[in-house]
Amino acid sequence: MDNQIGNLHNAVSMRDARQTSTLAAQCDVRTLIDRFERFSGEDRAFAFRLLSKDRALMVFEGLDPALRSDLVKSLRHEEIAEHFEQMDPDDRVALIDELPAKVASRLLSGLSPEERALTARVAGYPLRSVGRRMSPEPVLLTEFMTADEALAQVRRHLEAETVYTLPVLDGQRGLVGVTSLRRVLASESSQTMSDVMDEPIFARAEEDAELVARRCADQGLLAMPIVDSEKRLVGILTIDDAHTILEEAESEDQARASASEPLRRPYLSTPVTSLVRSRIVWLLALALGATLTVQVLDSFEDTLEQMVVLALFVPLLIGTGGNTGNQAATTVTRALALGDAHPQDVGRIAIREAAVGVLLGFILGGLGCLLAGMVFEWRIGLVIGLTLLCICTLAATVGGLMPLAAKAIGADPAVFSNPFITTFVDAAGLVIYFLIAAAVFGL
Amino acid sequence: MDNQIGNLHNAVSMRDARQTSTLAAQCDVRTLIDRFERFSGEDRAFAFRLLSKDRALMVFEGLDPALRSDLVKSLRHEEIAEHFEQMDPDDRVALIDELPAKVASRLLSGLSPEERALTARVAGYPLRSVGRRMSPEPVLLTEFMTADEALAQVRRHLEAETVYTLPVLDGQRGLVGVTSLRRVLASESSQTMSDVMDEPIFARAEEDAELVARRCADQGLLAMPIVDSEKRLVGILTIDDAHTILEEAESEDQARASASEPLRRPYLSTPVTSLVRSRIVWLLALALGATLTVQVLDSFEDTLEQMVVLALFVPLLIGTGGNTGNQAATTVTRALALGDAHPQDVGRIAIREAAVGVLLGFILGGLGCLLAGMVFEWRIGLVIGLTLLCICTLAATVGGLMPLAAKAIGADPAVFSNPFITTFVDAAGLVIYFLIAAAVFGL
Repeated sequence: MDNQIGNLHNAVSMRDARQTSTLAAQCDVRTLIDRFERFSGEDRAFAFRLLSKDRALMVFEGLDPALRSDLVKSLRHEEIAEHFEQMDPDDRVALIDELPAKVASRLLSGLSPEERALTARVAGYPLRSVGRRMSPEPVLLTEFMTADEALAQVRRHLEAETVYTLPVLDGQRGLVGVTSLRRVLASESSQTMSDVMDEPIFARAEEDAELVARRCADQGLLAMPIVDSEKRLVGILTIDDAHTILEEAESEDQARASASEPLRRPYLSTPVTSLVRSRIVWLLALALGATLTVQVLDSFEDTLEQMVVLALFVPLLIGTGGNTGNQAATTVTRALALGDAHPQDVGRIAIREAAVGVLLGFILGGLGCLLAGMVFEWRIGLVIGLTLLCICTLAATVGGLMPLAAKAIGADPAVFSNPFITTFVDAAGLVIYFLIAAAVFGL
Repeated sequence: MDNQIGNLHNAVSMRDARQTSTLAAQCDVRTLIDRFERFSGEDRAFAFRLLSKDRALMVFEGLDPALRSDLVKSLRHEEIAEHFEQMDPDDRVALIDELPAKVASRLLSGLSPEERALTARVAGYPLRSVGRRMSPEPVLLTEFMTADEALAQVRRHLEAETVYTLPVLDGQRGLVGVTSLRRVLASESSQTMSDVMDEPIFARAEEDAELVARRCADQGLLAMPIVDSEKRLVGILTIDDAHTILEEAESEDQARASASEPLRRPYLSTPVTSLVRSRIVWLLALALGATLTVQVLDSFEDTLEQMVVLALFVPLLIGTGGNTGNQAATTVTRALALGDAHPQDVGRIAIREAAVGVLLGFILGGLGCLLAGMVFEWRIGLVIGLTLLCICTLAATVGGLMPLAAKAIGADPAVFSNPFITTFVDAAGLVIYFLIAAAVFGL
């Protein structure tokens, strides 16, 4: 298999059309998509033209949106128009967002009127809203349908994105309940939907896609009906789309927590310059923050000159502070994301993290005091021990509260947390350190 | 609503049984579970006894496994035996794992023989394997069943964990295909399953639960059949169980990446001492690693004494190195988790990250050189600039390769990465810094 993939790669880069099309036909679709994501832009367009119609559509739909748009740009209009017509409206909108306006409007004008209307509806919702990610054509049941009629309705719409979760509507398209194909099958044939439906768990189309996706997944739903402001059904979010949204959100959170911008395409197909761009702004901001530590140390330069030994512990002390702060921030950020803690728990969180910080500080400070006292002298030990105690308490408390502060001002908790905490704790920790040293040594 | 929750909390802590049961009956189940996760152990047991039978089961199943086991320990055998019988075999096994052996065997002995057999089968698979998390009773179709017979079979088993993904078996329970209720409904009534099934996408029961769950979710499946070593069907993993597994795995990765052990229960119900325990071992290990920086600085003490100004930049330099390393490590770890990159891409990753590091180093180093040169003197600027260039290159390369190294030795990439990189980059960065300083100043 590995060998086959290597061969495919060779065939593509040699522009050997016959060999490429033979090998591509032998790969399974997942492997093929994986391979396509690693090709250069030109290789991708070359290989794509050689795929059979079915495979081309599957590969096209499986590609990362950013790569899909690259592909569209490098193919001729006719080569892509048909695939575009076949896509789901939500995928189509994602693609349009990536394309230059001219290419997008040309593709849109080639659609059938119904498909164009569906696409426009999805595109009308705000960016990052669930309206953008839903499927706009669920199977519709009404409350007075019998189980037999409902089953017939399902059979007429078997091509819908999902036929397992079934929204139930009143005469004005208002959502009154949700049932499932399972329950329809379990019902007596003459029972009406109003008897076999549950209170609907739904979301409004303007709501944040990530929050809705998490709600859908956490409640173990296969799909969640999406309504407008008057509770009329406008679409449905399926669990696989919810999973994609959550995975994107996790990638974004993780990138932000490590102080870089999320990548817009798979790692290996992201150009090096884009990687640099995703990281440099954050590094500059953090380095700017870190000049604070230079100023702090500068203002204690006299103390340092008298006792160079103090400089030896600087990396260890600020490193420990940073680690303690990150632990607290990550724990609280995760608890917020999972709904295990809420912003109104701020008091409890502060108390818990302060307590954890004090305990950690006693353990680390005690050990640090002993070791530094033994290796250097007892007063050094005392300074190190006390500093660790203060830094750990400060770092855990600040680390625990920072994600809440971010959330309070409407920012993503992950953005704000770890690197900022580190920078703050570094500077504050140094001040504490030199003040304690000055007190102990009477400088 | 918030008020009602506050009232419930009061009623419980006052041990007001009538008020508690009235208020609990008014809450929706999700809120109730959320509330129960925040109660103290005694409050939880008190409130649980006052729930109606239906609600008690729903709350019990919705609780975090660790809290469920706390609850079992504080209730009498009869109070819990019935709920235990109602649970799915996989949930039952998760609970048993948390319970003391005596309590567990007492509960197990109360089960009906069939339920006990199912539980034993699930419990027989290795920890962390998907066999532990699957539902052991899928709806079974055989390849010669007609669509009508298949539909009848589904109707007979509507209580199964899923009826939408349907494994198709041969005469020896061997998995030969997978179909869906949708396709069964779309078939002519006399078509056999062998005509409407696809090649099965399946997993073996011994496989790692996280990997299987990701496969299931990434491929957009609603459920994945699980087979034994001879490809006989033993169960099915549903997407909602897959989601739970992935969420646990994310929590674990995030905890590890910030150098703490994952928590076994929701944040606010984790005792402070457990929080301390989840963090202290890592902090000690990292502090021990950081003593390396003390030694490095100690060995350059003469240089430091001659030029205390060098000490001022230590936090900024190692901070920037740590940030650069973390960015690279997080990006590569995420790419590995999503399957966007594989261990065999080690060469490409190393080249990309080295290139990114050099570019970042030029930008940051250039700026650092200018600024430090202006504020201090040009030779200081030169030292800072060169050091930043070297540190960024080193940090990005090491950061990018570390997750691969972790994976190569079979460790979780997240465990190994960020804090270890920081410690390593700190020490190596200091050596580089003082060597460059010595060269420039001819010390």
